[in-house]
Amino acid sequence: MARIKSIHHVAVVVTDMDKSLAFWQDALGLNLAEVREVVEEESKVAFLPLEGAEVELVMPTTGDSGIAKYLAKRGPGMHHICLEVDDIDGVLERLRKKQMRLINENPRQAADGRRYAFIHPESTGGVLVELYQV
Amino acid sequence: MARIKSIHHVAVVVTDMDKSLAFWQDALGLNLAEVREVVEEESKVAFLPLEGAEVELVMPTTGDSGIAKYLAKRGPGMHHICLEVDDIDGVLERLRKKQMRLINENPRQAADGRRYAFIHPESTGGVLVELYQV
Repeated sequence: MARIKSIHHVAVVVTDMDKSLAFWQDALGLNLAEVREVVEEESKVAFLPLEGAEVELVMPTTGDSGIAKYLAKRGPGMHHICLEVDDIDGVLERLRKKQMRLINENPRQAADGRRYAFIHPESTGGVLVELYQV
Repeated sequence: MARIKSIHHVAVVVTDMDKSLAFWQDALGLNLAEVREVVEEESKVAFLPLEGAEVELVMPTTGDSGIAKYLAKRGPGMHHICLEVDDIDGVLERLRKKQMRLINENPRQAADGRRYAFIHPESTGGVLVELYQV
């Protein structure tokens, strides 16, 4: 059976990357692996890996992406939780059978080939959940 | 140096535990380890462990706890991220030196002896962050 393996990352939407890194990197002491422009997400992302999972700080670089609109409406804070799965097609199939509402009916593909899909917060109890198959 | 080790759990505040478990356990397929009354949090908590970290569903059982007020104000969804540390006193000391605002100036102790403290969202960019020393 298709299985949820682990928490891959928790994404935090931020307005000011330097100010956010002053907390997460300098004060809290997380290791900053990389800050990268992620074109398909219209964002600049800071990757802060921990044992097993990472914290990602996401700063929108355009005004009209989903995450830019979320930031404008709700302010900075936790944006989504990403769960790593061993078979994304199998998990999406099971969710559809249970009448769960999906944002992506079929997995999308990131620039590096990894496949992902989002589940609508309406079905999760207000949490934006991403599924990720590495 | 005091170190942040991993994401220990992500806590989701819920209004209806059965409905939430219909998503997280039945549809998504997470393993439900336990549902327990946590008296010091005035909540019922469902523990859904994954490899390395867990999802916790928290349903307030009184109307006047911090999490009950959060739920009344913001609705269900992600509540906090909990980071496991190797030396909670050392991390809190470093945060104080950086003028970060703490909710708990000194660690609190759970019924099982584990020590925890919350950092104020004002200093984290809108995220309620818990530190946890097992």
